[in-house]
Amino acid sequence: MGLKEYLLERQKLVDKALSGFLPRAAEKPATIHKAMRYSLFAGGKRLRPILTLAAAEACGGSAEAALAAACAVECIHTYSLVHDDLPCMDDDDLRRGRPTSHKVFGEGIAVLTGDALLTVAFEILAQAPTTSRYKTPALIGELAKAAGSRWLIAGQVLDLENEGRKVTGATLKFIHQAKTAALLTTSIRLGAMSANATEAKLASLTEFGQSLGLAFQVIDDILDVTQTTEKLGKTAGKDVAATKATYPAIFGLERSRAEAHRLTLAAHEALNSLGAKGVRLRGLADYLLEREY
Amino acid sequence: MGLKEYLLERQKLVDKALSGFLPRAAEKPATIHKAMRYSLFAGGKRLRPILTLAAAEACGGSAEAALAAACAVECIHTYSLVHDDLPCMDDDDLRRGRPTSHKVFGEGIAVLTGDALLTVAFEILAQAPTTSRYKTPALIGELAKAAGSRWLIAGQVLDLENEGRKVTGATLKFIHQAKTAALLTTSIRLGAMSANATEAKLASLTEFGQSLGLAFQVIDDILDVTQTTEKLGKTAGKDVAATKATYPAIFGLERSRAEAHRLTLAAHEALNSLGAKGVRLRGLADYLLEREY
Repeated sequence: MGLKEYLLERQKLVDKALSGFLPRAAEKPATIHKAMRYSLFAGGKRLRPILTLAAAEACGGSAEAALAAACAVECIHTYSLVHDDLPCMDDDDLRRGRPTSHKVFGEGIAVLTGDALLTVAFEILAQAPTTSRYKTPALIGELAKAAGSRWLIAGQVLDLENEGRKVTGATLKFIHQAKTAALLTTSIRLGAMSANATEAKLASLTEFGQSLGLAFQVIDDILDVTQTTEKLGKTAGKDVAATKATYPAIFGLERSRAEAHRLTLAAHEALNSLGAKGVRLRGLADYLLEREY
Repeated sequence: MGLKEYLLERQKLVDKALSGFLPRAAEKPATIHKAMRYSLFAGGKRLRPILTLAAAEACGGSAEAALAAACAVECIHTYSLVHDDLPCMDDDDLRRGRPTSHKVFGEGIAVLTGDALLTVAFEILAQAPTTSRYKTPALIGELAKAAGSRWLIAGQVLDLENEGRKVTGATLKFIHQAKTAALLTTSIRLGAMSANATEAKLASLTEFGQSLGLAFQVIDDILDVTQTTEKLGKTAGKDVAATKATYPAIFGLERSRAEAHRLTLAAHEALNSLGAKGVRLRGLADYLLEREY
C-alpha cells in the first residue's frame, strides 16, 4: 500500500473509532454533542493518531490495541484548537476554511466544547488495554502530563504572554517543545506502550518523536515566514513579523533551514534501530518533513 | 472528634495533598501555576473530597487510599467554577469574596487555568491505587463520565440555553442532577471504590449520593429564593426571579420544602445498611441538609 492509500485508510479507521467513542450528535443536550462533532470532524489530517497507530505497528503490536490511545490524542489536539481559537486567546474566525466553534455556537458553548473534548479524551483512554509492561493508568498519566500546565498549556500561556514581544531563542525552543513536540512525542509513545514495546524501542521512538516534533514546527515557521513575506506584498506597511516569534525571525532563514535539516536527520536516525518495522514511520516522517521550503 | 474538628482536620489533609499533587507556584510558566493555586486555595469547604474520604472509611478503607480520588474531584469542581465564572458564561466578578480568576489573570489565562485543573485531575487520579474489585481506569472512566458532556457539562449547557426562559420541572431536575448530584455522587462512589467496597455497599452509597446531591440543590434553591426575596426589597423592580430557574419558582416554596424533606430522609435511609460505619457520612449529611430554610 502506498503512503496516500495508507493515510486515507488510517484516517477512516480513526474517524470511525472516534465516532464510536463519542456521544451521538442527537444525544441531549444536542448542542454540545453537535459542537463536539463539528470540531472533531472538520477534515483534520489525523496526523497524531496515525502516528500512534504506526508506532504501535513499528513495535510489533496491532493498530486495534492502539486505537483508544490514538482517539484520545486527537480529542486533546482538537480541544486545544477550539480553546486557542477563542476571542480571549488567538481570536481566529476560521479553521480549515470553516467558521471556528465560537463563531457557530457562541463563546460559552465553545469553551464547554473544549472542556468536553478534553474530558472525553480520558474517558476514551481509560478503555485502552493494559499490557504487561505498561498499565493503562501510566498511559493516562503520560497524556495528562503532556496536555497539562507544564507542556501543552504552558506553550499557550507563553504564546499569550509573549505576543508582540521579542523572545529569546531558548524561549522559542521551549514554546515549540511545549506546544507541538510534547503531544506529538506522547502520541508516538502511547502507540509504542499499547504495543508493549521494550524500553529500548520506547526510547528510540521518544527520540524520533522529539526530533520530528521540533523539525515539524521549524519547517512550519519557515513556511509561515515565506507565506507571510508573500502576503506582506499585499498588506505592506503592517509589521506582521513582530507579533509572533518564529524560528526564522530569531535565527534567520538560513540557520532555520540548517536546523530543520539536522532535526530531520536525527528523526530518521532514531528509527534505525527499528529496522524494516520502521518503514511506515519513516514514510510518515518524510511526508511531514519534506515539504517545500 | 466533633464534626467541626473533623471537618477542619480533613480540610487540612485535603489541602496538603492537593498542594503536593500540584506544580509549585514558582514553577514555569509561573502565571498558570499561580492561577491554578489561586482558585484551588480560595477557601473552599472541600465538601466533595471530604465526602470521598468519609465514604472510603464508611466502607472500612483508609482515607489515605482515597486521597488521590478526593483531590481529583476537587480539581474538577474548581475547574468548573473557573469556567462558569467567565464573562461568556455566568459572568461573575466575585467568588467567595475574592475577584474571580479572569478578573485577576485575564480571560485567556482563566480559560487555560480551568483546562489545567481539569487535566491535572486525571493526572492525579491515575495515581490512585487499584483494588481487587475496582481498577484505576474504572475510577478514571467514572470521573470522566460525571464531568463530561452528559452530566456536569450538560448542566452548564442547559443553564446557558435556558437563561431567562421558563423551564419545566423535568428540565430543572435534570439540570440539578447534572450540575450538582452527578459529581457529588461520583465523589462518594470513588471513595467507596478506593476502599474496595462490596457491590451492595457501593449501591447504597450511590443512592445516598443521589438523594444528598438533589436535596442539597433544592435547599440551595430555597435559600436562594429567600435571600433573593430579601434582596428584592433593596433592588425592587428588577425581575431577578425570571433569569434563573429554581425549585421554588416552579413548584412553590411549600412543595420545595416537602421535596427537600423527602430527599433528606431518603439520604439518611440509604445509610442504614452501613450501620455504625456510616456515622461520619450521616453527620456530614446533617451538616449539609439541616441548614435553615
